[in-house]
Amino acid sequence: MNALPVLQTRISYTFTQPQLLQQALTHRSFSAANNERLEFLGDSVLNFIIAHQLFKRFPDLPEGDLSRLRAKLVKESSLAEIASTLHLGDALKLGEGELKSAGWRRPSILADALEAIVGAVYLDGGFFAAEQVVTLLYAEKLTIIDPKVIDKDAKSQLQEYLQSKKMELPEYEVVSIEGEAHAQSFTVRCTLHKLKMTTTGVGTSRRVAEQQAAKLAMEKIQS
Amino acid sequence: MNALPVLQTRISYTFTQPQLLQQALTHRSFSAANNERLEFLGDSVLNFIIAHQLFKRFPDLPEGDLSRLRAKLVKESSLAEIASTLHLGDALKLGEGELKSAGWRRPSILADALEAIVGAVYLDGGFFAAEQVVTLLYAEKLTIIDPKVIDKDAKSQLQEYLQSKKMELPEYEVVSIEGEAHAQSFTVRCTLHKLKMTTTGVGTSRRVAEQQAAKLAMEKIQS
Repeated sequence: MNALPVLQTRISYTFTQPQLLQQALTHRSFSAANNERLEFLGDSVLNFIIAHQLFKRFPDLPEGDLSRLRAKLVKESSLAEIASTLHLGDALKLGEGELKSAGWRRPSILADALEAIVGAVYLDGGFFAAEQVVTLLYAEKLTIIDPKVIDKDAKSQLQEYLQSKKMELPEYEVVSIEGEAHAQSFTVRCTLHKLKMTTTGVGTSRRVAEQQAAKLAMEKIQS
Repeated sequence: MNALPVLQTRISYTFTQPQLLQQALTHRSFSAANNERLEFLGDSVLNFIIAHQLFKRFPDLPEGDLSRLRAKLVKESSLAEIASTLHLGDALKLGEGELKSAGWRRPSILADALEAIVGAVYLDGGFFAAEQVVTLLYAEKLTIIDPKVIDKDAKSQLQEYLQSKKMELPEYEVVSIEGEAHAQSFTVRCTLHKLKMTTTGVGTSRRVAEQQAAKLAMEKIQS
């Protein structure tokens, strides 16, 4: 019951309307008055505040890199990490099913609740309050983030390379799917018609196999 | 040269730093000091302000519907429409190639510039200034928007249908890209492996062609 005051201390914000914080911590499995709408709002506040922080911090970084840095900061695992440092799991209201399956540890539930808290702070205290809370929560991540180590996935890299050369996009085709449903192996062929080049990737999902095929294509191109 | 004062009157905001507005109107084809970073920032400001407006206006609407309404309001064609009412095309700075191909009429260029203006207002006048400009620009759209007539796009419809039948998601492939850079025609194939069904869409962008292919697939399924 005293989880709320502790949480407010951790985020350095005290709610005028504590029922908003309460709602932000309520998962849909617990009540119809849950945090889903607050999460919608909070997600957009958070995206904006992080965008602005990156914009200021990296005055020469192109738009595409800013986007990628932001995506890295607001992805589920990053949010869940911050939620864990706040011990958000202890303060969540979950329905019985979620309690049984240890929902308070689930990254998606933690990430959603954190976004909902940001939305609740915005509604309770306005934009500057939300900005202060977000920059506090992200202080460390914003300090250590390095635009030079943006890890683009292979498919994006390949696509950007081809676009820069005004070449048509690669074609990915599933060549085969083998194995039982729970242990399938996908084989994907990546074709670059213009370059008359074909590579083949194998993986546990179509996505993984495509990435593998794209990676091999990039290596072939650069060799 | 007097396009700027007129534009500022139309958006009911006067810049303290007019060079920010100037930059927001500068396409990458014109100069390295273009509007791409401002667009990144403006996109996130806009998304947030519209999210908040919808949140307030529809206190009982579930998160998913709020998301769809927002997507409708901030999609390229909506932005380009608002940009046209502002005669934004007349104020744009475009490189020669874009001038020749009537880039000032291109929806993507107009939409990007409008987002950049929102970003510029935010940097120049702060959050409340941006909020006022956005709510003014969206006054009509926000008044007439009706959550009951959320038209899901064809790809979403197809995906939801397939998920409801526990079928795997469709695969979209670009089959060909034809024409010059400013007037390309994309052909996309949509494959539903389980249903052994293939449809083909054609459009001015990959997105449009995909939507077209998805629409045809839905029609085939329902026929």
